[in-house]
Amino acid sequence: MAEAPPATAGPTPGPAVHELLAAYRNGSLTPGAHVRRVLDLVAAHGDDGTWISVDAEAALARAAELEATPGAADLPLYGVPFGVKDSIDVVGWPTTLACPSYAYEPRETAPAVQRLLDAGAICLGKTNLDQFATGLNGTRTPYTVPRSVFGGDLVSGGSSSGSARAVALGEVPFAVATDTAGSGRVPAALNGVLGYKPSRGLVSTVGLVPACRSLDCLSLVVADPADLRTVLDLMVGVDERDAWSRPYARLDVDEHALVVGLPDEDGLTFFGDEATADAHTRARAVVAGLFRTTATSLAPFLAAGELLYSGPWVAERLVEFGDFLSVAHDDVVPVVGDIIRGGARFAATDVFRAQYRLAELKAEVGRLFASMDVLVLPTIGTTFTVPEVLADPVGTNTVLGHYTHFGNLLDLCAAAVPAGTTADGRPASLMVLGPALSDDAVLAVATRLAAHLPTSAPIEESR
Amino acid sequence: MAEAPPATAGPTPGPAVHELLAAYRNGSLTPGAHVRRVLDLVAAHGDDGTWISVDAEAALARAAELEATPGAADLPLYGVPFGVKDSIDVVGWPTTLACPSYAYEPRETAPAVQRLLDAGAICLGKTNLDQFATGLNGTRTPYTVPRSVFGGDLVSGGSSSGSARAVALGEVPFAVATDTAGSGRVPAALNGVLGYKPSRGLVSTVGLVPACRSLDCLSLVVADPADLRTVLDLMVGVDERDAWSRPYARLDVDEHALVVGLPDEDGLTFFGDEATADAHTRARAVVAGLFRTTATSLAPFLAAGELLYSGPWVAERLVEFGDFLSVAHDDVVPVVGDIIRGGARFAATDVFRAQYRLAELKAEVGRLFASMDVLVLPTIGTTFTVPEVLADPVGTNTVLGHYTHFGNLLDLCAAAVPAGTTADGRPASLMVLGPALSDDAVLAVATRLAAHLPTSAPIEESR
Repeated sequence: MAEAPPATAGPTPGPAVHELLAAYRNGSLTPGAHVRRVLDLVAAHGDDGTWISVDAEAALARAAELEATPGAADLPLYGVPFGVKDSIDVVGWPTTLACPSYAYEPRETAPAVQRLLDAGAICLGKTNLDQFATGLNGTRTPYTVPRSVFGGDLVSGGSSSGSARAVALGEVPFAVATDTAGSGRVPAALNGVLGYKPSRGLVSTVGLVPACRSLDCLSLVVADPADLRTVLDLMVGVDERDAWSRPYARLDVDEHALVVGLPDEDGLTFFGDEATADAHTRARAVVAGLFRTTATSLAPFLAAGELLYSGPWVAERLVEFGDFLSVAHDDVVPVVGDIIRGGARFAATDVFRAQYRLAELKAEVGRLFASMDVLVLPTIGTTFTVPEVLADPVGTNTVLGHYTHFGNLLDLCAAAVPAGTTADGRPASLMVLGPALSDDAVLAVATRLAAHLPTSAPIEESR
Repeated sequence: MAEAPPATAGPTPGPAVHELLAAYRNGSLTPGAHVRRVLDLVAAHGDDGTWISVDAEAALARAAELEATPGAADLPLYGVPFGVKDSIDVVGWPTTLACPSYAYEPRETAPAVQRLLDAGAICLGKTNLDQFATGLNGTRTPYTVPRSVFGGDLVSGGSSSGSARAVALGEVPFAVATDTAGSGRVPAALNGVLGYKPSRGLVSTVGLVPACRSLDCLSLVVADPADLRTVLDLMVGVDERDAWSRPYARLDVDEHALVVGLPDEDGLTFFGDEATADAHTRARAVVAGLFRTTATSLAPFLAAGELLYSGPWVAERLVEFGDFLSVAHDDVVPVVGDIIRGGARFAATDVFRAQYRLAELKAEVGRLFASMDVLVLPTIGTTFTVPEVLADPVGTNTVLGHYTHFGNLLDLCAAAVPAGTTADGRPASLMVLGPALSDDAVLAVATRLAAHLPTSAPIEESR
């Protein structure tokens, strides 16, 4: 597994949304000045695989326009820069999916992103991803391959590699990502920031190029947990053009009554990575100190994840990209093309069989959630370096998705929360999972955990 | 279409459940005496394609046992004979699916049927069906091909042909059927009785040999609407072994506030059958006289029906029967074998594409139900004779399912209510449809309609 990175590495978040707004309001900062500072930072980071395209001129013009618009300063995201994963349409940027030959110029901004722009946010550009959002490791791009901000040549995670890095590097306080099988949570975990995958249907997926249309979610990466609620509340909303859209019914959560499920530790695997196992044990102790907990089985969750990994859902990617991939393109990442074309091996009967099994597992999971509000797991069981992933691109990717694959199949919502580092300085992360539409419970637990867990240092033994 | 049957034809229901219970309680009848009378009636009807197997000895023994059991007379179905479609397991009878070479001896009675037995009901035997529950017309059986009780060589409808006939002939007050694409509603319509298809998941499907496992429902056929509520209430219940099981949350229905959707008449088709169109117009006038109505679009419903008819769900039947059909069997009905084997032409991508389209249609239908509680349609647009169906077994079957195909795909509940006859004496039926878990609203409307509509004569013009 990974070598030890420099002990000083980790996320270096910039100002949070609420901090920026406060600075703008007290006159100590202007959107234009902040955007210039951010553009300088992006330039200083160089071609690090975070962004596919940044439009400095457009961002500065937008900042100036906001400054000149009466009343704009009252907008909830006034002058806040953000990034958008490059599988989501934003007018003014080509949508590439990290495949230049696939790129097109969108005629409409994704409504969920438009809501952020309408709230005064400034889109800096489009972030890098595993091509066609097919991957959890971050190496599957023809652009520069990004690395984790923890260094040591660790992979950034994917597919929302750039969105996680942009936040972890302090360039933006939040970035829009996606999460079908872990794409929003795994890179958040590997870069020491928060990833939030809402219940499916709360945030419109219109304007997202689908990976698995029946499973895709827009997700968020943030550094400050307070920003999660702010930005998510702006993004959610029923959209008649999204067939999976459903309303967000706010829950009245009593934080002190919440019951957190923890699986038996022998149901967890860390793939031989003792340091990550140890970091997780310390993080679990913090969970147990903060919440009522109950023991639960992980078996049906992992069985659903196995179903996604080995099952016919990959054919959904073929529905979307089959025509494009039927012609040779130099910039298609070979492993990505192979995976997607592999969807052709599944028959209709395979889909129904897998969906029957999934229905059983869903019912079983529903019964488990009758005795807990949320479940807390590791987000990732271990880390890999870029060479390790390139040497075994499919095997390592499956390991990275061990705890995230099942989330959307089982219709769960999930947060990845930084949970200290291993003794050798690699990132650890806790995942909080809840049943569909229990977002408020998951957010409450995630926020409280974030307040008690470090991001760039090991959790101390005595906690 | 069909020739005019004798004007005197139609259903000849026997005593309803509440009438039998009253007679048993006042001592004017005993279960044993009634069962003997019913067995005589069945014998008098001869080999008419209603039953695949009747166990007279077992029924008489069961009646005697009930009579001898202290307290049994208080059971809600004490001494009530009923029939069960022969795709549902009942210990003591082989489950044949109308294919003797497929038959097996079940080791456990389907829990939903067991609940009826536990309530004191007496299973007479297993009823005929379109083989493997694949058909809506009733001719697809190696046993005797049943006819509609309206005569004129009209098909009985299927696949629950025998269950509908047993009720319409007055042999039993209710029979257990199934309904995947109309199998419970179409034969009820063609025999002048009530068919009820609950919301999916309310009645356990354990012990049912699946047709399309993701869509199958156990359903009921009754002659007296009052019996529907009695029997349904006994059958519903969460079953952990049924992955689609969900609880029945009783609704508080204000009958007078219900809004009934009626599609524009030009959105309805009767396949050139003017007499059925006329009968439906008269029945609609009765609906409009009894309820607040609103105009609605039928387009997304019919589009979903088309999706079922032409789409990949037939592969679900291949999952179930593919192995059996891979070997030649003399008693497989050729058109049934061809249809099921045809499921092999669909790829995984076809399933996902169809499911995406279905998700869109479901969302559209959900929006339509925001302005109505239930929708009322014809159950069938026309009738066919047995020779007409045999001459075009697939085309006529599709016509019979025009208004029923979409019900389970769109997760609706539905009742088929007898609605008089055509001027030439063929049956007409109204179908009441509501969104999932609105069973109480559908039952309320169906019960009221049944009280105002004849079963064996045309609705008079002036109503």
